[in-house]
Amino acid sequence: MATSAARLNVTDNSFLTLENHGGHMHVAGVLIFEGPPPPYDDVVERIQARLARVPRYRQKLADSPLRLGRPLWVDDPNFNIHYHLRHTALPAPGGTAQLETLVGRICSQRLDRTKPLWELWYVTGLEDDRFALIAKTHHALVDGIAGVDVATLLLDPVEDDGTRDGTAEWEPAAEPSDVQLAVAEVRDLLEGQWSVAKRALRALPHPRQAVQAAGEYLQGLRDFLGAVLDTAPPSPFNVAHGPHRRVTWFEIDLSEVKRVKNALGGTLNDVVVATVAGGLRSWMLDRGYPVDDVTLQAMVPKSVRADAERHAVGNRIAAMRAPLPVGVASPVERLRCVSAAMADLKSSKQVLGVEIYLGAQQFAPPMLLAQAARLNFSTRLFNLIVTNVPGPQFPLHMLGREMLSFLPIAPTPQGHTLGFGILSYNGKLGFCMIGDWEVMADIHDVADHIRAALHELQDAATAAESSH
Amino acid sequence: MATSAARLNVTDNSFLTLENHGGHMHVAGVLIFEGPPPPYDDVVERIQARLARVPRYRQKLADSPLRLGRPLWVDDPNFNIHYHLRHTALPAPGGTAQLETLVGRICSQRLDRTKPLWELWYVTGLEDDRFALIAKTHHALVDGIAGVDVATLLLDPVEDDGTRDGTAEWEPAAEPSDVQLAVAEVRDLLEGQWSVAKRALRALPHPRQAVQAAGEYLQGLRDFLGAVLDTAPPSPFNVAHGPHRRVTWFEIDLSEVKRVKNALGGTLNDVVVATVAGGLRSWMLDRGYPVDDVTLQAMVPKSVRADAERHAVGNRIAAMRAPLPVGVASPVERLRCVSAAMADLKSSKQVLGVEIYLGAQQFAPPMLLAQAARLNFSTRLFNLIVTNVPGPQFPLHMLGREMLSFLPIAPTPQGHTLGFGILSYNGKLGFCMIGDWEVMADIHDVADHIRAALHELQDAATAAESSH
Repeated sequence: MATSAARLNVTDNSFLTLENHGGHMHVAGVLIFEGPPPPYDDVVERIQARLARVPRYRQKLADSPLRLGRPLWVDDPNFNIHYHLRHTALPAPGGTAQLETLVGRICSQRLDRTKPLWELWYVTGLEDDRFALIAKTHHALVDGIAGVDVATLLLDPVEDDGTRDGTAEWEPAAEPSDVQLAVAEVRDLLEGQWSVAKRALRALPHPRQAVQAAGEYLQGLRDFLGAVLDTAPPSPFNVAHGPHRRVTWFEIDLSEVKRVKNALGGTLNDVVVATVAGGLRSWMLDRGYPVDDVTLQAMVPKSVRADAERHAVGNRIAAMRAPLPVGVASPVERLRCVSAAMADLKSSKQVLGVEIYLGAQQFAPPMLLAQAARLNFSTRLFNLIVTNVPGPQFPLHMLGREMLSFLPIAPTPQGHTLGFGILSYNGKLGFCMIGDWEVMADIHDVADHIRAALHELQDAATAAESSH
Repeated sequence: MATSAARLNVTDNSFLTLENHGGHMHVAGVLIFEGPPPPYDDVVERIQARLARVPRYRQKLADSPLRLGRPLWVDDPNFNIHYHLRHTALPAPGGTAQLETLVGRICSQRLDRTKPLWELWYVTGLEDDRFALIAKTHHALVDGIAGVDVATLLLDPVEDDGTRDGTAEWEPAAEPSDVQLAVAEVRDLLEGQWSVAKRALRALPHPRQAVQAAGEYLQGLRDFLGAVLDTAPPSPFNVAHGPHRRVTWFEIDLSEVKRVKNALGGTLNDVVVATVAGGLRSWMLDRGYPVDDVTLQAMVPKSVRADAERHAVGNRIAAMRAPLPVGVASPVERLRCVSAAMADLKSSKQVLGVEIYLGAQQFAPPMLLAQAARLNFSTRLFNLIVTNVPGPQFPLHMLGREMLSFLPIAPTPQGHTLGFGILSYNGKLGFCMIGDWEVMADIHDVADHIRAALHELQDAATAAESSH
């Protein structure tokens, strides 16, 4: 029988409850390799062999018939690798446009919740003899940062000789019955309540925490959020939309971003955030949206997992809110605004605060969970998601083929028509945009504006360098 | 404002309400052409030009906020051909196996109900320089027989020279507001009730009809169905299943089926039904299912549209029930059983009966419609769908390329794990099977058994011929 250890944590569960009305909480990674494409069966074998390292990839959700709390992860007795690993191809010429179209289509479809929450598409027919993997995974299974880790499991830091891992035999644990699921759910709920009570007792010398833990949970949560976070402004990126998506990306040299940072100040992340702000500003101006005095709010997920947990699957992420000052015309001034705000945020308790908030949620009565999750991702708090993740700065390989690009695709919950996934890999920085198919029909224009904003910063950096 | 003429008829609406829990009510056609594949833009242009002939293909469903009755068809102001026409490719070698996999995947996904209910996939990367179109259409939009007509709109009976239709400008009608939709719904309901009352008055000399029309509608319907149709037996093809599908097909010479018919008696359709029965029998024996005295019941949709309506879109189909005597060991005896039963059915009132039943439904109180629709497709009445449709017996072309095959894919409502689509085209007969991805994981074995059953009949025909 599955134990309470396999129950979804609160954050992971919130990613399930957030998925409705065309909102998607899967993330994706597009991995492009140099060819020649390996035989499909070799890819099957490689995936099979490494699945033993990530047991969650052969587990599915099991909800108790009581549906009082969070579902469990249980082994899928019908696990079939050929459902998850799918071979497809691009039409000619097999370039970026065709790959973007395919990724957009794949991201438009919700993952089947009755199976392990991932799909891996093996894509042939790319130009220059390349091939690609599109890894689509539910956010409840793996966050952006753990995602890099899991992909790394399939990849090798050195060019291997194609020797294969032995395919380990896998014996699924017995699937729990409905009665077992209900008993486990009630037991876990009671234990949760007991845990709250124990915390309340321990917290007596800290009356504030005691109040929060012991009864006025929801009010406390709302006060906390209200104090730390202002409401995000209305924006063209927060309107009703459908389930269909468009995707586009481009890559730049990481060294260019570093040069901007060194010449103009701030961190790499500040330059990335300022670039996004500049691109959105000029796109909004182009489309006639007001920008004066507007500061959009980006949700920047931040991993709070300890290093020991790095290869564990599951989310330990906190939400940090970064300002996107689209009202500021000067690129240098915009970067300064971002840097100052980010430094402020880092010295404040926001990150820690949100971490506590996620921790506290663990003990919240189940009825409040869905509510809190919606609040957390609400367009009232964030305008758009910008996941900026540092990746490995050395080449990775699969079956002896070098990975040339690793492009991350952000989740797109309802009310968010545009999201950014940004990842550095082996000296390059990939900027990936995902948007609603209809609302963001001009997503390629957004990409052009982002590129232009980076050029502005590069020019400013060159000017600053020559003035030294 | 859309008028009541654009409201879904009862049969079409029932195909919407039937779609749940992994049941799909879309149908598909796989059209394989000789190459070279035309440029994507030429295909776009051809589709665009011909859409004017089928206005429903630019219409979407509009439900009144009252949700009392059936939705309307209204012009989709956001219609975008690039959403519906999708370019994709097969991985190498681009053979039947890869095309079947793609068709299975496409049939696993429900059509988006907020858009016109069709997708057309343009597939390149087929071996021998061929290409394919996969037309996926909701059963509410077009039935199997109209489907041939609509595909014919895209096709030409003669090898054309590639000259293009002019792209007609299309101006969508204004989308009705929620208030307009609600007003129209109430008006149509009142008119429907008035129609029932008028019929009841007119029917006074026919007391039986009056009773049926005027009040005891549901009871009458159930009596009627109970009298005409027995309950279908339990079978391995009627178990719970998921949304994912597998597809496979093969083609045979139509002349061989004709030879069997001429040597052994019966109609072409009888031979097809007997072949399916024989294949299912040997598959069931192989898997250890009991077959003695088992007669499965196939739902054989039959168009009841008048010839004048042939190019209209929408369903006028009646369900006829054909026996599949899987308990009969001798292929010749099995064919005789089928022929006798079919002749019996044709001389009975069943087809007409079901037609009346569909007609009467038009006036049924809306609350009963969903119920009646479920009853109609219930596994209690039918074990599996066998759509056997005569297609054109001359070659069709698109943009100057000859269509080599036209393979129809049946709908797969919940509780039906296997369905047959059978179509004759230009001297060939295509047998297409669609099954649940997990329950019918061995669907290729089913195909082998069907082929073997046909060989049995062919051998019997040869023996009968030489004994003459």
